[in-house]
Amino acid sequence: MTTDPVDLTARLVQCPSVTPEEGGALVLLQDLLEGAGFACTRVDRGEVCNLFARWGDKGHARSFGFNGHTDVVPIGNPDDWTHAPFGAEIEDGFLYGRGATDMKSGVAAFAAAAIDYVTDTPPDGALILAITGDEEGDAVDGTTALLDWMSENDEQMSVCIVGEPTCPDHMGQMMKIGRRGSMNAHFTVTGKQGHSAYPHRAVNPMHAMARLMDRLASHELDQGTDHFDPSTLAVVTIDTGNPATNVIPAQTRGTVNIRFNDTHTGDALSDWLREEAEKVDAAFGTSTEVRIKISGESFLTPPGPLSDLVARAVAVETNITPEMSTTGGTSDARFVKDHCPVVEFGLVGKTMHAVDERVEIAHVHQLKAIYTRMLRDYFA
Amino acid sequence: MTTDPVDLTARLVQCPSVTPEEGGALVLLQDLLEGAGFACTRVDRGEVCNLFARWGDKGHARSFGFNGHTDVVPIGNPDDWTHAPFGAEIEDGFLYGRGATDMKSGVAAFAAAAIDYVTDTPPDGALILAITGDEEGDAVDGTTALLDWMSENDEQMSVCIVGEPTCPDHMGQMMKIGRRGSMNAHFTVTGKQGHSAYPHRAVNPMHAMARLMDRLASHELDQGTDHFDPSTLAVVTIDTGNPATNVIPAQTRGTVNIRFNDTHTGDALSDWLREEAEKVDAAFGTSTEVRIKISGESFLTPPGPLSDLVARAVAVETNITPEMSTTGGTSDARFVKDHCPVVEFGLVGKTMHAVDERVEIAHVHQLKAIYTRMLRDYFA
Ligand SMILES: [Zn+2]
Ligand SMILES: [Zn+2]
Repeated sequence: MTTDPVDLTARLVQCPSVTPEEGGALVLLQDLLEGAGFACTRVDRGEVCNLFARWGDKGHARSFGFNGHTDVVPIGNPDDWTHAPFGAEIEDGFLYGRGATDMKSGVAAFAAAAIDYVTDTPPDGALILAITGDEEGDAVDGTTALLDWMSENDEQMSVCIVGEPTCPDHMGQMMKIGRRGSMNAHFTVTGKQGHSAYPHRAVNPMHAMARLMDRLASHELDQGTDHFDPSTLAVVTIDTGNPATNVIPAQTRGTVNIRFNDTHTGDALSDWLREEAEKVDAAFGTSTEVRIKISGESFLTPPGPLSDLVARAVAVETNITPEMSTTGGTSDARFVKDHCPVVEFGLVGKTMHAVDERVEIAHVHQLKAIYTRMLRDYFA
Repeated sequence: MTTDPVDLTARLVQCPSVTPEEGGALVLLQDLLEGAGFACTRVDRGEVCNLFARWGDKGHARSFGFNGHTDVVPIGNPDDWTHAPFGAEIEDGFLYGRGATDMKSGVAAFAAAAIDYVTDTPPDGALILAITGDEEGDAVDGTTALLDWMSENDEQMSVCIVGEPTCPDHMGQMMKIGRRGSMNAHFTVTGKQGHSAYPHRAVNPMHAMARLMDRLASHELDQGTDHFDPSTLAVVTIDTGNPATNVIPAQTRGTVNIRFNDTHTGDALSDWLREEAEKVDAAFGTSTEVRIKISGESFLTPPGPLSDLVARAVAVETNITPEMSTTGGTSDARFVKDHCPVVEFGLVGKTMHAVDERVEIAHVHQLKAIYTRMLRDYFA
């Protein structure tokens, strides 16, 4: 059997599945998978649609999982596109459209690989596809809902490949064996309003904010670890909105974003941020409210059997040994890692989220071949 | 002759002379002064009306000047007032209305004193009233226009009293013999936009801004001088407007206000601010544009004959020796000081610019008496 991953990508791109719209994408996949003998369950939660599909026995000790998403980010101004954003037009070896790289092609490649593999050489094991309709949005009712449902229903993956684009420039270049954690801290510094001519009668929250942000930005969080770059902290905004130069404002707001490696936890960093704010408050007489949102903890699937499996498959198909990286933003691998060992491998991500998002057709075929080789090796 | 300064205040308050409207106030004063033998000239410039009035010979070596303004700040929400803002209603010994203290009463007191004095005891000398319709606004075509016109027409004051409210709490408490300078510096720090997850590929202008503002705010400009409080610097706003926590913004803006004593000049402080910005740019790889507006240099009329004259007149009429101060914001004295020695003395300023602005009627009579005594002493 030969399922064409490019044709499947095109049909998925034609589904306008901007988060949280299902857009027909999961229905299409469910049809295909059921046709190949997968047991499918829609695991919808809130306004989000998700699809769980398993071939083979529930609870098999060798259950290979794929995870991915069919939702896409908005297209922006359609006039900026040279190809219809949901047209899946092909030109000069590229397929154009929103989701062409992130990640309808990835889903198409692993679905095609899985369908053909179980049809041609039914393995002694199980194959699970956990596909969500909300990775680009809040991701609250997406892969998390799938994993919750799986644990309630004794569904278990032994290992999992997330099919997100992972290669910065060329195919086969990089897999991700972990991710840094990510958190935002929002600071509201309150002082006492006053006249600029009499600053001793006021408490200037701007001075406290400048000191606090300089201290945070100057602090070396760590020097990196074996598999991680150094953690980073970026002040991303300070806003006050005081139009009057003769007025010391009562309040100002600032936000920092931290990407942290396995030296830290979100809670420990939260404690540190609060302590720094308290020190500055003590020095300036201000009072600072700190609101923290941890998007994900750092995690690592240490180099081992799963990363070896990926590296071998990539090397055979591309002649390239993929780098084991932990760089980049967050992905649903941050949820999967609590379930089983997880590695991310997929296409070149250059145009993801951009106007004229596109995927090289040859790469989609290559990716299907790589995923197929992983299955063959895994069940060998 | 007895010109009633309270009646004149009331008639001036009834003129709705919100900057830059003349509102009938200068016309009323011109009528009165011409009736008393003052030669009057309207020195209008741009949309601003100003009145120059002289009694006695042009160029007399003993020319006593008064300076003040008839324009007022807006009334805000009229429903917040318990008395009509332009009604000049009297209740419990107070006259209510916008400009009641700042400074139609001051103008009324010096006009009444001047008219009665030249009528009753014509001095060997000249009396000049320079009254502007724009002190509360940009002050570009106000007292400056009067002084420009005076120098073009060989009109000269030997000394000048500015009749602004100068007493914080009780009548006679304070005169101003100088003012700190005031300047604003607007910083636009430009870096390079990027993703929060890859700060090393971006140049974060927020970090440079935080450092710069902390350095400026921490710097001790001076410890004060004989007649001046220490200079102060207040960061009044930082604004970025970046809603995306995963984006390092390209640019951020901040403003500082400096109130400086005679240790500094606006130019020297500008150099310092630019040097500090350059240091931070060198450290962070940013580029910072500094836009500076000097509202006024610091100035001092050192204690001497004029402040003695004021102190004596105040002490005789109130039994209080006024403090010689240089505190507070700017006033038109910052322009007059380039023309002749200048001291400011006037009423209790508590309700200036506020809702239910009001003046104690007894104080207006007292102020006329003080100004009259200054004239008597000066021409003695
Ligand atoms: Zn994605
Ligand atoms: Zn005033």
